[in-house]
Amino acid sequence: MADEVKLFGVWGSPFSRRVEIALKLKGVNYEFFEEDLSNKSALLLKYNPIYKKVPTLVHNGKAIAESQIILEYIDETWKNSPILPKDPYERAQARFWARFIDEKLMPTLWKVFWGCEDHDKVKEEAKEHLETLENELKDKKFFGGETVGLVDIVGNFIAYWVPRIQEASGLVLLTEEKYPKLYQWSHEFENHGDVKVKLPPNDKLLAYIKSRLEGVSTSK
Amino acid sequence: MADEVKLFGVWGSPFSRRVEIALKLKGVNYEFFEEDLSNKSALLLKYNPIYKKVPTLVHNGKAIAESQIILEYIDETWKNSPILPKDPYERAQARFWARFIDEKLMPTLWKVFWGCEDHDKVKEEAKEHLETLENELKDKKFFGGETVGLVDIVGNFIAYWVPRIQEASGLVLLTEEKYPKLYQWSHEFENHGDVKVKLPPNDKLLAYIKSRLEGVSTSK
Repeated sequence: MADEVKLFGVWGSPFSRRVEIALKLKGVNYEFFEEDLSNKSALLLKYNPIYKKVPTLVHNGKAIAESQIILEYIDETWKNSPILPKDPYERAQARFWARFIDEKLMPTLWKVFWGCEDHDKVKEEAKEHLETLENELKDKKFFGGETVGLVDIVGNFIAYWVPRIQEASGLVLLTEEKYPKLYQWSHEFENHGDVKVKLPPNDKLLAYIKSRLEGVSTSK
Repeated sequence: MADEVKLFGVWGSPFSRRVEIALKLKGVNYEFFEEDLSNKSALLLKYNPIYKKVPTLVHNGKAIAESQIILEYIDETWKNSPILPKDPYERAQARFWARFIDEKLMPTLWKVFWGCEDHDKVKEEAKEHLETLENELKDKKFFGGETVGLVDIVGNFIAYWVPRIQEASGLVLLTEEKYPKLYQWSHEFENHGDVKVKLPPNDKLLAYIKSRLEGVSTSK
């Protein structure tokens, strides 16, 4: 029986795009279901009753939720083009940095760009986190070494969304001068063959971000 | 070369105890370093410079942080007595419920017992989450089936700490009547041979919780 792979996602969501990138790297064909988050489909609610969130992957009728858990599932199910390293210690490190991005860096950047109290303090925090990630990249092309791995995929927001949010908002943190390695990595990542075709189109994303930022400033 | 395993932890922390339980299940000997969180050791700061938190595991000089990441590392390094299932889908499910406990259930219970605004609403949320977990246990002895697995270990706070916090605070959510399966599981868990010896002593923990709760009510 051929694999039946369905992905419930949203085109502009970095979390959904993580899963699309991983499936593309593995060469897995899938059917994509674009969700309207203000009116979620009955199928999404059925497959992800606890969180009711995208991305949700359904493989041969079995549903998996939470993007990082989905990425590990994909890596364990389709063994070619590994996303995680083999060595347990290196795996733990990859998981650590993936969590760091989700739990520290992304929430802080979110607050910086979408507004918060203590804006100056949060901006300093975001810079510190970017510095930490910059140091972790060392002299590698990708966090995964020569190939795109878990941390790169989870970091898609930093690599692709942040430069466009910076362009739309005029608020610039991630520069070539301050974070030369991250900046170069961001470029390598978005131009990687399998990644490139699974990122949202530049103009569409930029327009979307601008409309979201206008929404924020209008509602202030 | 024999394995050198060091664990930096705190005796009353369910997160530290997760790692101790896993090492015990695997039969791995380790040296335990009790941390004073108000005056963290130079070694902890060296080994976990990003979060500076317990538990931190150091295996042959290499440091691993974050309890769930440590549990996966332990399971991948010592293959006997598996903590995670073999099948990728079941592994994803175990990770999903472990995350649910860390991201939903524990923070909500924490607010219920240690006070928060909207207390009634948060209590209702906690009950809902307990119900969700009750339903997931189904008719299994442990979340891991016949043996203690990832979700059981991550759930140690629910199984062992919550009954004692309830006793100390008089605020009771987890009862045999309302959650018969979780209640039975809690009993099975704390009486499991390898688990039992790695849980904090009842009286010491109870006294500690009482002192913490008094601290909260005094500072109000």
